[in-house]
Amino acid sequence: MKYPLHLQKLIENLKRLPGVGLKSAERFAFHMLDWKSDQLAEFANLIKDVPEKLKACSECGCLSDHINCKFCDPYRLRAGLLCVISTPKDAFAIEQTREYPGLYHVLGALLSPLEGKGPDQLNVHALRERIKKLGTKELIIALDSTLEGDATALFLRRELEDLQLHVSRLAFGLPMGSSFDYVDGGTLARALSGRGSF
Amino acid sequence: MKYPLHLQKLIENLKRLPGVGLKSAERFAFHMLDWKSDQLAEFANLIKDVPEKLKACSECGCLSDHINCKFCDPYRLRAGLLCVISTPKDAFAIEQTREYPGLYHVLGALLSPLEGKGPDQLNVHALRERIKKLGTKELIIALDSTLEGDATALFLRRELEDLQLHVSRLAFGLPMGSSFDYVDGGTLARALSGRGSF
Repeated sequence: MKYPLHLQKLIENLKRLPGVGLKSAERFAFHMLDWKSDQLAEFANLIKDVPEKLKACSECGCLSDHINCKFCDPYRLRAGLLCVISTPKDAFAIEQTREYPGLYHVLGALLSPLEGKGPDQLNVHALRERIKKLGTKELIIALDSTLEGDATALFLRRELEDLQLHVSRLAFGLPMGSSFDYVDGGTLARALSGRGSF
Repeated sequence: MKYPLHLQKLIENLKRLPGVGLKSAERFAFHMLDWKSDQLAEFANLIKDVPEKLKACSECGCLSDHINCKFCDPYRLRAGLLCVISTPKDAFAIEQTREYPGLYHVLGALLSPLEGKGPDQLNVHALRERIKKLGTKELIIALDSTLEGDATALFLRRELEDLQLHVSRLAFGLPMGSSFDYVDGGTLARALSGRGSF
């Protein structure tokens, strides 16, 4: 017997969430049947209002509900740092470290030929213009340590070579609190080649 | 830096889904930022309309979008079987086996003193009345093989003892396709005590 149509559609929509397969989507949908109407209405309104309420800053691409983007605060300009991230979420993660005083630039995508994401999606021109405008001294590439992140980092370095800019990338090595036994070979190799005096 | 208020609220709502913690909820919420407005609106409407579109059958408690509940189809009465399940989802799972010709009864909850779910939540009276009305010959208890499921099954058997009804419960044993190495001791013990001639 098939699920009622409305339930099927709800499950299909839940499957769009990252990492959610059929089984999880079914579990979520059936769980929602037990929610109260006002809970469902609140949730629905929050989802519907996302485009209106959560707009990216036209300057840096970060999320902010303030009129002036908090990530573009003028005092951040002084450090001369610009941090390239792939999504607005990364800015919050970096802010939580309380170690970074500079500005951000959301790339919006990583190079991924298989997903049809080429250099055009990265909008390097906007990044270049911003670097010039801000008088950035150091560009920090804070992208995933994946194939796509590596490719994008190399691409950016080459594309911006003529700007005479110091380009750095986040360090690779052992995660904090990690046990040697569970660190993979690739990470260990990078930790070894990037070793520092102690 | 805190997330924008709207995003925070969205994350809190996503955390209500079963098995979704803060990290997953954040991931879902940021993923939604990339959805198109019409996708978000469709999803929101589906959620909002759940109470109106997905109503449980007043007779058996199962879900159906037909005017006459498919699970209450008259031909199902003939088998004299009534299957007690805890949620409407279970009926779909049992239907998929194509092995069960009888009717269903959704209990809605399992006994769970810690969650404040006592005998009152089970509505045994309705079940009892239904058994009498339907002239049920066999009651099949198809509840989880957990502490709560076991307690509820034992409770139902005792409560309905006077009805002179054959009460059965789903078999316990090795899951199909399972390797002996990965079967836990409890399951193995039940499989052994419930062994059949072969």
